[in-house]
Amino acid sequence: MTKPSSTPQPCFPSAAVIGAGSWGTALSLLLASAGRDVTLWSREEDQVREINRTRENAAYLPGIGLPASITATADLADTVRHPLILMVTPSGGVRETARKLNAAGLAPGALILSCSKGIETGTGMRMSEIIAEECPGRPIAALSGPNHAEEVARGLATAAVVGAENHQQAVALQHTFQVPWFRLYTSTDVAGIELGGAIKNVFAIAGGMVDGLGLGDNAKAALVTRGLAEMTRLGTALGGRPETFFGLSGVGDLVVTCYSEHSRNHRAGRALGEGKTLPQVLESMAPMIAEGIPNSASIHDAALRAGVSTPIIDETYAVIHQGKDPAAALRDLLSRQPRPETDHHP
Amino acid sequence: MTKPSSTPQPCFPSAAVIGAGSWGTALSLLLASAGRDVTLWSREEDQVREINRTRENAAYLPGIGLPASITATADLADTVRHPLILMVTPSGGVRETARKLNAAGLAPGALILSCSKGIETGTGMRMSEIIAEECPGRPIAALSGPNHAEEVARGLATAAVVGAENHQQAVALQHTFQVPWFRLYTSTDVAGIELGGAIKNVFAIAGGMVDGLGLGDNAKAALVTRGLAEMTRLGTALGGRPETFFGLSGVGDLVVTCYSEHSRNHRAGRALGEGKTLPQVLESMAPMIAEGIPNSASIHDAALRAGVSTPIIDETYAVIHQGKDPAAALRDLLSRQPRPETDHHP
Repeated sequence: MTKPSSTPQPCFPSAAVIGAGSWGTALSLLLASAGRDVTLWSREEDQVREINRTRENAAYLPGIGLPASITATADLADTVRHPLILMVTPSGGVRETARKLNAAGLAPGALILSCSKGIETGTGMRMSEIIAEECPGRPIAALSGPNHAEEVARGLATAAVVGAENHQQAVALQHTFQVPWFRLYTSTDVAGIELGGAIKNVFAIAGGMVDGLGLGDNAKAALVTRGLAEMTRLGTALGGRPETFFGLSGVGDLVVTCYSEHSRNHRAGRALGEGKTLPQVLESMAPMIAEGIPNSASIHDAALRAGVSTPIIDETYAVIHQGKDPAAALRDLLSRQPRPETDHHP
Repeated sequence: MTKPSSTPQPCFPSAAVIGAGSWGTALSLLLASAGRDVTLWSREEDQVREINRTRENAAYLPGIGLPASITATADLADTVRHPLILMVTPSGGVRETARKLNAAGLAPGALILSCSKGIETGTGMRMSEIIAEECPGRPIAALSGPNHAEEVARGLATAAVVGAENHQQAVALQHTFQVPWFRLYTSTDVAGIELGGAIKNVFAIAGGMVDGLGLGDNAKAALVTRGLAEMTRLGTALGGRPETFFGLSGVGDLVVTCYSEHSRNHRAGRALGEGKTLPQVLESMAPMIAEGIPNSASIHDAALRAGVSTPIIDETYAVIHQGKDPAAALRDLLSRQPRPETDHHP
């Protein structure tokens, strides 16, 4: 079925990674392990100096050594020569960073791979749509999946999906990341991949609240199941293909985020369920961000505009942005009137 | 949308529960809480005497008080007068028990609700198919979902799905179980509901092996995602409807069984991953049974007969029945050649 490995495969020999948080650093390490030269950009000059001096990103990925093929920089001009650019900033910073990248002289043929998960507040745009607006004319792809950065960095087996409208670009990205512990599947559904990764963060907060309130494993499984249905309903209304939400970037990312203690969104929800206030939760995580907190508003807005029923997103939004008591929110969710499980059968 | 509660709803005033394990006892408690008279059958006379004397099923559901409206019996003749019969024995005992129930003079119009999860070894039959063969002419329904007995018994919010080919029977069952902490959704896909509940036990063992081997949350999420695809592929080939596998009795039961420490199948897989032998695992659970162990053979056979590709089931079968090393099985699963994530796109 597969060609002999002596046949050369198209791939990107070098890449820039924009954003030196946990995931940007883990992706840099993956690319370096696959033999690529990597420029890792951070806006924090202190962090850049520390990475280049100590070969470690101690604030975001402590204890993981970074090879010499990764060079950190605080200057976007150092990144634009690469044929592949990974965008891995927090979702709220993607537009500004993409604009600066374009102004810094981004190569006309560079492929931009979006690895940030979120929906823009106000516009409801996906990350790849923002990038297309700010860096016009470049090909764009998206990578997502159930991928805790710490585990990827430690070489634990991980699978993800990379989507590009042009299938050959997805295949080239697959080869670019080829290391034995990272299995990259291809897709052409960029919208579906991005939407699953963004929407699931809101459910992870709701799932964390179930745990913080001690409601049990049965209630959590019911919430995850209804969450998958809600993600699929909203995600297809916003342009994704249904089958994508049953894959790694949909249900896979949903379960890892709802059940893993690594997940910041899950931890944020648990703290809310235990009675912490939102400012307390945000402060306890700094400098890291639980993306589901800002995104609960942008995704709630997107659902309203699309006219899609999203009870879990609505209740999570009410807890985060309207001060609703988490116990009351969960009670309202779990006491909804029973009805046929699917809409197909009376 | 809903009728005023003063309108009487058809429901079953009394029921027999066949099988006094954890789940049979929890279902008896639910029925009693909804105001039904319950006869709880066990073949163990000692257990029957203990339940009637102490109002507790100490071996299977310790610390949970059972009301006077539950009467235990070891005589099937005491059960056949009820209009509703719940079958809750281990899957391997359903045929023999159904045969005896029929011989004991089961009422001609009695509805039999299958709550056991499994596929018969040799025949590949679902539990409701076995019951239909042994108790011909009676209406049959099935109940399944992410339902740990201990949590249901403690009154924690739980959702499940009840399926009957006749929708009115499913609605009557919904009303029969109506208590505030148990939400029962209706379906007409009896086959899909039963297949999800049976197949998921095999994936729970595989998921437990991932945990026992310390392979991490990313690998586990990938396994659950590919497991859902495998369950859907096999389950639709065997007669279920695809959408059922994305509901409570499919993905819901899959995640609760893969992620909860309550799950016997998950604990069995974890012990195998940690290097325990199968006899050690079986002995440590007695008298309880991890259904995925016998069912890994019957489900593996069913997949072979149906000509469906089921790599996770095949590897789990090889560990349990052919002595394959769990680490080698998981390595073989996680190193499969990457390809497009869905079959729809090249």
